Amino acid sequence: MEMHDILKTIYQEVKPLASKGEVADYIPQLSFISPDKLAISVHNVDGSCYEVGDSDTPFSIQSISKVFGYTLAFKVLGPDIWKRLDKEPSGNSFNSLVQLEYERGIPRNPFINAGAIVIADIILSHYPNPQQTLLDFVRGITNEPSIRYNHDVATSEKLTGYRNTALAYLMKSFKNIHNSVEDVLDFYFLQCSLEMSSKNLSKSFLYLANHGIVPSTNEQILTVSQSKRISALMLTCGLYNESGDFAYRVGMPAKSGVGGGVVAIIPKKLSICVWSPPLNRFGNSLAGIEALEKFTTYTGDSIF
Amino acid sequence: MEMHDILKTIYQEVKPLASKGEVADYIPQLSFISPDKLAISVHNVDGSCYEVGDSDTPFSIQSISKVFGYTLAFKVLGPDIWKRLDKEPSGNSFNSLVQLEYERGIPRNPFINAGAIVIADIILSHYPNPQQTLLDFVRGITNEPSIRYNHDVATSEKLTGYRNTALAYLMKSFKNIHNSVEDVLDFYFLQCSLEMSSKNLSKSFLYLANHGIVPSTNEQILTVSQSKRISALMLTCGLYNESGDFAYRVGMPAKSGVGGGVVAIIPKKLSICVWSPPLNRFGNSLAGIEALEKFTTYTGDSIF
Amino acid sequence: MEMHDILKTIYQEVKPLASKGEVADYIPQLSFISPDKLAISVHNVDGSCYEVGDSDTPFSIQSISKVFGYTLAFKVLGPDIWKRLDKEPSGNSFNSLVQLEYERGIPRNPFINAGAIVIADIILSHYPNPQQTLLDFVRGITNEPSIRYNHDVATSEKLTGYRNTALAYLMKSFKNIHNSVEDVLDFYFLQCSLEMSSKNLSKSFLYLANHGIVPSTNEQILTVSQSKRISALMLTCGLYNESGDFAYRVGMPAKSGVGGGVVAIIPKKLSICVWSPPLNRFGNSLAGIEALEKFTTYTGDSIF
Amino acid sequence: MEMHDILKTIYQEVKPLASKGEVADYIPQLSFISPDKLAISVHNVDGSCYEVGDSDTPFSIQSISKVFGYTLAFKVLGPDIWKRLDKEPSGNSFNSLVQLEYERGIPRNPFINAGAIVIADIILSHYPNPQQTLLDFVRGITNEPSIRYNHDVATSEKLTGYRNTALAYLMKSFKNIHNSVEDVLDFYFLQCSLEMSSKNLSKSFLYLANHGIVPSTNEQILTVSQSKRISALMLTCGLYNESGDFAYRVGMPAKSGVGGGVVAIIPKKLSICVWSPPLNRFGNSLAGIEALEKFTTYTGDSIF
Repeated sequence: MEMHDILKTIYQEVKPLASKGEVADYIPQLSFISPDKLAISVHNVDGSCYEVGDSDTPFSIQSISKVFGYTLAFKVLGPDIWKRLDKEPSGNSFNSLVQLEYERGIPRNPFINAGAIVIADIILSHYPNPQQTLLDFVRGITNEPSIRYNHDVATSEKLTGYRNTALAYLMKSFKNIHNSVEDVLDFYFLQCSLEMSSKNLSKSFLYLANHGIVPSTNEQILTVSQSKRISALMLTCGLYNESGDFAYRVGMPAKSGVGGGVVAIIPKKLSICVWSPPLNRFGNSLAGIEALEKFTTYTGDSIF
Repeated sequence: MEMHDILKTIYQEVKPLASKGEVADYIPQLSFISPDKLAISVHNVDGSCYEVGDSDTPFSIQSISKVFGYTLAFKVLGPDIWKRLDKEPSGNSFNSLVQLEYERGIPRNPFINAGAIVIADIILSHYPNPQQTLLDFVRGITNEPSIRYNHDVATSEKLTGYRNTALAYLMKSFKNIHNSVEDVLDFYFLQCSLEMSSKNLSKSFLYLANHGIVPSTNEQILTVSQSKRISALMLTCGLYNESGDFAYRVGMPAKSGVGGGVVAIIPKKLSICVWSPPLNRFGNSLAGIEALEKFTTYTGDSIF
Repeated sequence: MEMHDILKTIYQEVKPLASKGEVADYIPQLSFISPDKLAISVHNVDGSCYEVGDSDTPFSIQSISKVFGYTLAFKVLGPDIWKRLDKEPSGNSFNSLVQLEYERGIPRNPFINAGAIVIADIILSHYPNPQQTLLDFVRGITNEPSIRYNHDVATSEKLTGYRNTALAYLMKSFKNIHNSVEDVLDFYFLQCSLEMSSKNLSKSFLYLANHGIVPSTNEQILTVSQSKRISALMLTCGLYNESGDFAYRVGMPAKSGVGGGVVAIIPKKLSICVWSPPLNRFGNSLAGIEALEKFTTYTGDSIF
Repeated sequence: MEMHDILKTIYQEVKPLASKGEVADYIPQLSFISPDKLAISVHNVDGSCYEVGDSDTPFSIQSISKVFGYTLAFKVLGPDIWKRLDKEPSGNSFNSLVQLEYERGIPRNPFINAGAIVIADIILSHYPNPQQTLLDFVRGITNEPSIRYNHDVATSEKLTGYRNTALAYLMKSFKNIHNSVEDVLDFYFLQCSLEMSSKNLSKSFLYLANHGIVPSTNEQILTVSQSKRISALMLTCGLYNESGDFAYRVGMPAKSGVGGGVVAIIPKKLSICVWSPPLNRFGNSLAGIEALEKFTTYTGDSIF
């Protein structure tokens, strides 16, 4: 079966699943999305790409943005980043304070909320204009200047993000937040509010699929080793408390967001994004996970 | 032995202990206190009183103020107060977030920080001018118009109170804080900044020793039943994670603060306050606990 | 109202409550008890006694026996007992392993299961014939030679007591059980299987109500101080995770068991036992708790 | 650099590291091993093999045996196995009871002790002669009839394995152990006592490197999908609480044991075993981890 046919088949098969999940509603702006949206986009490192469904519709990438934030922080700090957080799976729900308290303010990994807030703090300390830097970075790796933040979503999340505020203050009490909590959360929520289409999101992860280099421009974002290490983090920690199950069933480094997006890669080969807003009980796109499992089954590709 | 001799004996015996503890230093204003201060004051419900040492020097009563806050909230809400918090000992260190997360934002009791913050929220919702109301209440039961807040201490605590801020936001995320976190914490830290002398603090607890009625004025603050119940709460939850040990060794309902004060009562009989700033590892006045243990030993009085 | 009338009134009022609880059924032998059994017995330290209902029917005292075990261990070890366990309320359900693991095998207090198992281990190490010693002790303080163990209940509990076995092995792994787990549990379950009537159970607690001395024989079991301290432990830890609520509503040192018994004391005055098998959600006798709350309300007596 | 030269280089480089770790001493038999032992063995799926150091010396494979146990259980139960345990990283130290209690007796994954004990229970329920079956299985896939259990090690572990006994009884209390705890632990400890050389251990993992098929005999042990899924489990859960770090630094599915062995695979390519008894603070072979990190660096091979 050719790639385009595989995507069409998967599209048909997972389309009915959307009705079994729940669209995130803790932010009004997220709940307005039609649950019927569905998109699958694939970019190969050789430049070819395939897509089905609503692949040009921008959506809120939410936690997927943590990969971009981590990339920026890792570029400036290198291995010193591990003085501020750990790289182990969390073993608890994605925003639990328990582990954070027992481990004295050191988050388990950069892809849980606490970890991404520390990453935001690092970015604020090391980039003079972090909001523009992040936006330029994402626009650069996709060659898509229209990508933007959704300030309404960011504001809305900030107004209701009491638990994230609690996480930030707890880490501040352990001296693991250096800037003001207000500034850090402003940047964190803005980062989460990035809106991109499935096509652009798939394209944006090519530097990770391609061992650190953007294929279209040959720009080196990370070293081979750094790129592999982000892949490893995505594999062990990318899907909240469903990471082990996803590695088991699907076998690709991936990152999801509560906007219904999931991006995954096969190293040296391709990047794939699926978008379907309704979520399963772990907060991951229900149809998205199924689509990726079918993808590795139909193509026979996985990292294992 | 007469009461005054008992107090003098205890004073001599515990005086050397102060050097074994540590004055709280997380707030600069608290760390400036001389560790050598020591006062013991007793008020009997019959009006007689006894004192030794620095019993006229005002100090920061800190968590002891939680008893006053709880009294005000209990007066307006009655048993409905238990929809917002529980009345069980906490079994963990006094400001742990773990239990609060597992119990979905319902604090274990009104004398841990989380509970006192909920109490502050209740007071803000039910009294139009809570700061003045609390001050008037404490001045009234002591007939001491000079009692005041220390705004520097309150401001200082607010600036460094990241963990309490985290507690408040966590409860807000569980919808157990109704006012803005900022307003609630402003009031909470102001309440903690109350300054009173050992003599006045001992006098102020007479309404609890006297089953709800201020002996000097016959003003009824609480019903007999309500007063007994606050005593029970003090016994099981008044000294953080040392409450069981204190009940065991001393056997009096009591409340302590990190300013080095401890107040205890014998129902229908007396109220006693000890002040010595250096704290033991549980955050309670080291010499204060010892003095109270000696007091029950020498007088033979306890509730058991 | 006279004592006998008070007890009759309470009996009538709480009789209907039994239908709202659940008889413990994890041991077949316990589930065979009629849920309609109800007894109230009071012994004054002056020798007078009162009773209503099924006060001569023996029942399984279960966890109430922990007070007798603790008394025997405390007599031989004295304050050294606190090297093996703590005296703080547990803050979690009565048989949780979590706290025990975090606190490295040191149980929170002698009245949770883990603590009572350590007590059993201490008794085994210090008494050559512990089973007979315990039986003789209980028979002695009641002058009732017919009190006996129920070996069927003990065997049944041992066969299904997997969680208690887990607790014991966990403490063994922390070197806080010195004898073999098998021997310790054999004694522990035998102790729990003691059968006594409400009348005898009430009588047996008189040495605690009377500051360490059995009133009828003047035998000194404990010193005044030791006796007060057991009372303090009962107040803060005697009713599992309902201890704070019970202190608050009732205000008496007490101990309950899943057989439906509750015993409480007023120091220097009386001992009272209520027996009603159906339990509330905390594992305490539903009608028993209510009866004791009414008792302090009608008599005006409590420790506060 | 050729494979043999790579192994020799790594051998020289990690040889000095052994002195920085600690040989496991909780079992006397393990502590007798010379800390200077070091072996590296590689088997390619094409049949070629390479080795340096003490690669013919049998050692106690301990937790590495969990992969064999899981394979046997998975063969008979298939996906039904997930009714008995989960497949998520544990996020806590390798033998914690906390998570097991909160998750009601369902272990996080088959490679923590609790999970492997459930696997042992499954094997006992489904194989009439489990000890012989496991031995035959390991002898079969290595063509090495001399592989044997060390009954002294098994007995010794059983006598001191109080924490594992606690885990088993806790799961029994949640009805997740169906056979007697004694029988289950007997088999579990025997499985852990398997002794194999580095050469044979490397060879034994070829069926996992080769997508389910033993290369030398073409015997199909597992389907491709099943084999990939065990690899995913090893990647996310194979090295206790160091799994995330190992995936990050090394990037190979792997399993370690407290005997100082670590085995890892590159799917479709090779299996590698390193043996060096001294352990790091996570309980993994200190030199073993370093050797594997160097291996992926020097060969450029990893799954990412």
